[in-house]
Amino acid sequence: MSAAGPVPGPVLVVGAGLLGTSIGLALRRRDVDVAVSDVRPENVRIATALGAANVSADCGPAVVVVAVPPDHLGAVIAEHLHRGSPVVTDVGSVKSAPLAAAAALVGDDALRRYVGGHPLAGSERSGPFAASAALFDGRPWALTPHERSDPDAVAAVAALVRACGATPVTLDPVEHDEAVARTSHLPHLLAALVSGRIAEAPPSHLALTGQGLRDVTRIAAGDPALWQQIVTANAPAVAALLREVRVDLDRLLEAVQAADRGPIGGLLDRGVAGTARLPGKHGGPTRADTALYVAVPDHPGELARLLADTGESGVNVEDLHIDHDPDRPVGLVELTVAEDRVEHLQASLEGRGWTTHR
Amino acid sequence: MSAAGPVPGPVLVVGAGLLGTSIGLALRRRDVDVAVSDVRPENVRIATALGAANVSADCGPAVVVVAVPPDHLGAVIAEHLHRGSPVVTDVGSVKSAPLAAAAALVGDDALRRYVGGHPLAGSERSGPFAASAALFDGRPWALTPHERSDPDAVAAVAALVRACGATPVTLDPVEHDEAVARTSHLPHLLAALVSGRIAEAPPSHLALTGQGLRDVTRIAAGDPALWQQIVTANAPAVAALLREVRVDLDRLLEAVQAADRGPIGGLLDRGVAGTARLPGKHGGPTRADTALYVAVPDHPGELARLLADTGESGVNVEDLHIDHDPDRPVGLVELTVAEDRVEHLQASLEGRGWTTHR
Repeated sequence: MSAAGPVPGPVLVVGAGLLGTSIGLALRRRDVDVAVSDVRPENVRIATALGAANVSADCGPAVVVVAVPPDHLGAVIAEHLHRGSPVVTDVGSVKSAPLAAAAALVGDDALRRYVGGHPLAGSERSGPFAASAALFDGRPWALTPHERSDPDAVAAVAALVRACGATPVTLDPVEHDEAVARTSHLPHLLAALVSGRIAEAPPSHLALTGQGLRDVTRIAAGDPALWQQIVTANAPAVAALLREVRVDLDRLLEAVQAADRGPIGGLLDRGVAGTARLPGKHGGPTRADTALYVAVPDHPGELARLLADTGESGVNVEDLHIDHDPDRPVGLVELTVAEDRVEHLQASLEGRGWTTHR
Repeated sequence: MSAAGPVPGPVLVVGAGLLGTSIGLALRRRDVDVAVSDVRPENVRIATALGAANVSADCGPAVVVVAVPPDHLGAVIAEHLHRGSPVVTDVGSVKSAPLAAAAALVGDDALRRYVGGHPLAGSERSGPFAASAALFDGRPWALTPHERSDPDAVAAVAALVRACGATPVTLDPVEHDEAVARTSHLPHLLAALVSGRIAEAPPSHLALTGQGLRDVTRIAAGDPALWQQIVTANAPAVAALLREVRVDLDRLLEAVQAADRGPIGGLLDRGVAGTARLPGKHGGPTRADTALYVAVPDHPGELARLLADTGESGVNVEDLHIDHDPDRPVGLVELTVAEDRVEHLQASLEGRGWTTHR
């Protein structure tokens, strides 16, 4: 864990939703003075009652964290730069648009005190009651200083990020937006397209679904009102990728209609190559993991017993999925472990009476 | 669990790969006589050594299970109908194309002895060494009798499916192919398109990836050679869905370029509706589940301790994801539990010293 530098305080968090309240709670763990404000006074009362704030909003903040919906970021950032706050940051999912909006409202000199930020953490829930001091623990948090950002402001925001338990990842705002268009916004939209086909499926089709479909569509359950704002705020980068996808899709459709396997195979090969590039745990290079499947009776305590037996084997579990079964009180648990450990784990679990397969 | 009827034996499994060998192992659990054959003699030796077969291929089978690659299904099904086998089934992912191929090679009378099948089970591994007696336990297994399938043949295949531990789901072959085009083939292809954008991403973009992207792209790691055959064998149904997606994609691209939120929101709303339709566990209606997040130190035994503490709470875990963190020895575990149980679980875990949030 990186040591966190001193966080200038007090910190004013503007917007006491999930992210803002969680930032307050995380900073209060480190005894940083925090104030919260919100257009809805009840949100301030809730966040304060939860322990996310200990000083009032007129505290004269050393750092302002803007945690309002994407549409309002530019104006609120500019407002706090106008007020003379020494450092202003935000937590929006898109970085170029709010920077441009703020730049149109304040002078170059004031803008030096702004450094964009974006914690890669969240929840399908929203509002202050969903907040947690642990929300950012171990997550990446993008920092997007612009050309004229004051180095002292960047250092202050980096210290705040570390104090929240997150790891700062520095990117240029445009590069950030292109990155999240690719790693977050495009996947969200295509998951919604797949899920849209499920929305209109005849009921009989739904008998043949498995874990693969659930995985592909999970993120499509996110709040449409928020995602509308995110996608339109990052329109150029998202549109560029959608155009690439449309080219691929046209080629694919043509190849499928003609039963021409070459282009289909090329596209599938590229998909395999993409999955191999996703970073492994702890930010290191991708490691060879493999899956072990275990049949587990579906009642309380059985999963615990399996994990306890796994713990006894000394093998660390990298990931775990539970695939529940239609019509039967048994679940298949997929344990992902390092390839060079799976044999040992399988022997150990079989020795303890579990039915496993690879 | 449904009671399994008597399985006519011996059963000849043609193709000793992952599925064929697993069928042999599953039937041998129930003391059904099994023979295996394969164009590669070493596969027969391996499968037999693993315990998937106990009689020779010239046993005069009561049921033949064809478990060869999609391209060869029709010819091998027809071959065994020609030989006079009383019942022939197969395990291909697509059902209309092999039925048509077999029908072109044998008379209507012989075809009565064929009943298509498709177990919804598999692994990213292949070959007989990857096989398991437990592979089908609790999984759906589509049965696709055609108009003239003999009812006795259907009953025999259903008994075989149950003996393998799976649950038969009866569908017309065309309906089956349309269903899996929607629930399996289209999701696979769109996951490959998303993953293809990752294959060509600048390295800096990969710092901003999370569980969502990993979930969307996971299935894109599947074997391209197999998926090429599946997609082309189901070309009409897959092409129809790809055309629907292209219409959506064109609308979406136009809306994003124009920053026109209405159509974007409509598409996102449909995605949410789709996720709500996916069946809940045990084939029942979707149930309201919710997530509880717990911070877990990343070394052997900690996950077991968490699950043991969860077991003590009496709350049943529906699903569990581990989100590993860049640069920090801590993981966030997402426990999915019934909505009306999450409060109790959270209180119980907090009482045992875990840091949680919702």
